[in-house]
Amino acid sequence: MPRTPTPPENAVTLSFHVRYAETDAMRVAHHANYFVWFEMGRAAYCRERGIDYAAMETERGLFLPIVEAHCRYVSPARYDDLLTLAVWCKEATRRTLRFGYLLKREETLLAEGETYQILVDNAGRPCTLPPDLAEKMGG
Amino acid sequence: MPRTPTPPENAVTLSFHVRYAETDAMRVAHHANYFVWFEMGRAAYCRERGIDYAAMETERGLFLPIVEAHCRYVSPARYDDLLTLAVWCKEATRRTLRFGYLLKREETLLAEGETYQILVDNAGRPCTLPPDLAEKMGG
Amino acid sequence: MPRTPTPPENAVTLSFHVRYAETDAMRVAHHANYFVWFEMGRAAYCRERGIDYAAMETERGLFLPIVEAHCRYVSPARYDDLLTLAVWCKEATRRTLRFGYLLKREETLLAEGETYQILVDNAGRPCTLPPDLAEKMGG
Amino acid sequence: MPRTPTPPENAVTLSFHVRYAETDAMRVAHHANYFVWFEMGRAAYCRERGIDYAAMETERGLFLPIVEAHCRYVSPARYDDLLTLAVWCKEATRRTLRFGYLLKREETLLAEGETYQILVDNAGRPCTLPPDLAEKMGG
Repeated sequence: MPRTPTPPENAVTLSFHVRYAETDAMRVAHHANYFVWFEMGRAAYCRERGIDYAAMETERGLFLPIVEAHCRYVSPARYDDLLTLAVWCKEATRRTLRFGYLLKREETLLAEGETYQILVDNAGRPCTLPPDLAEKMGG
Repeated sequence: MPRTPTPPENAVTLSFHVRYAETDAMRVAHHANYFVWFEMGRAAYCRERGIDYAAMETERGLFLPIVEAHCRYVSPARYDDLLTLAVWCKEATRRTLRFGYLLKREETLLAEGETYQILVDNAGRPCTLPPDLAEKMGG
Repeated sequence: MPRTPTPPENAVTLSFHVRYAETDAMRVAHHANYFVWFEMGRAAYCRERGIDYAAMETERGLFLPIVEAHCRYVSPARYDDLLTLAVWCKEATRRTLRFGYLLKREETLLAEGETYQILVDNAGRPCTLPPDLAEKMGG
Repeated sequence: MPRTPTPPENAVTLSFHVRYAETDAMRVAHHANYFVWFEMGRAAYCRERGIDYAAMETERGLFLPIVEAHCRYVSPARYDDLLTLAVWCKEATRRTLRFGYLLKREETLLAEGETYQILVDNAGRPCTLPPDLAEKMGG
């Protein structure tokens, strides 16, 4: 049996309950929601690092759209399960960010994922992360 | 047994299949999605009347946020059910719109709903529907 | 200006951040999500009262589908806003439950809502709440 | 500039409008919804091939959970955009299915994706696709 992967030490973790609306007729959490949870994980990651992502959008006009997303589903999650998500920055350049994710229920691995984002401005043009944000984001 | 209500003659109807992601662990469509379907119904209503709602937002800076929403759920919808939604304008003023909805699967009534919207500008201030749109919207 | 309504003393409250996926092109939380939040509030209410709603479904075959839902939207919520939802049981019979909701961001009222649920068994037939659950639910 | 990929001849296509609820604060369709659209594409694929997926679940107790999902986002989709999704079976074994997806708005490529599913029974145990379904699914 494969060993459950361990997130790196600089990972940020958050815990949450599976919502009823997130389940589907298989009585498990619908697979599309994992990407919503990953995003919630990135929000927690930013908060922990002192990055105000909302202000980054509204005040600086900087956005981080997803250009690639991947998830491997290992074991299902059910209604009201208390899940723990670990999120970490796998790679940061001045123009791109790659995050990794591990989702568990206690010691059971439920899923692992990865997203790749690019930085764009208000007009959707690729741009460069200001130094203060780059340091906080990737560190 | 109560008679199934009939939408008024000027109602616009659209048909769609229940998506798997819209079901929940009760194996029926989750109740929050009905409001998403109502919104999809308003889009069909606008299209039918020659109103380009997307352009109304992006070109004229006019928005129609929901200020009140109500739904009565009569019978559940299941995965892949082919549903028919009737949408009509119950009341139109220069600043507000009230829509009614009837959702059926063939002749079975599944739900009836109502939404109330106000017109606001880019800054969220209440404003007045231009005459060309008012006529198309409420007629 | 109307006074902000106050939830009753026996209300259960929970706090959460608005998710990015919950926003829409008006840059505010989409109105359908409020019903998902209300449901999350009922889950917190059950947890607080020692009711295991998941087990109620899977072990006792009892379900509480929504038969009526209403929301009045007062002020918009934005991405990452920290919201507080108060949930309370307005009325409990052996076969029905009516919950009330107040949603705030700090002292600002964002929305108030109400849902009406009936108790059904695995086959969707109306049934009666067992005394142990009835007491915990409505008390 | 890379040539837009072309779906294979046996692909099934469907068209749909982007719903308002599917947009987010970047004013584009939220990336998690693409997986919901892919699923809607698989439903269309099954329908076209004479497979009643709903009955497969409810009558035969066969389920096709996603074990891996991937999407590459090329260009954003906006509210009310009319999109065309092509879906095809890339690989079918008696126990697994791999689907490919291409999403376009007219001739513009918006995204390409892939999902990998395994067949399980009511108890979540891997099982084997009955011959009649295998032929229709992979052909």
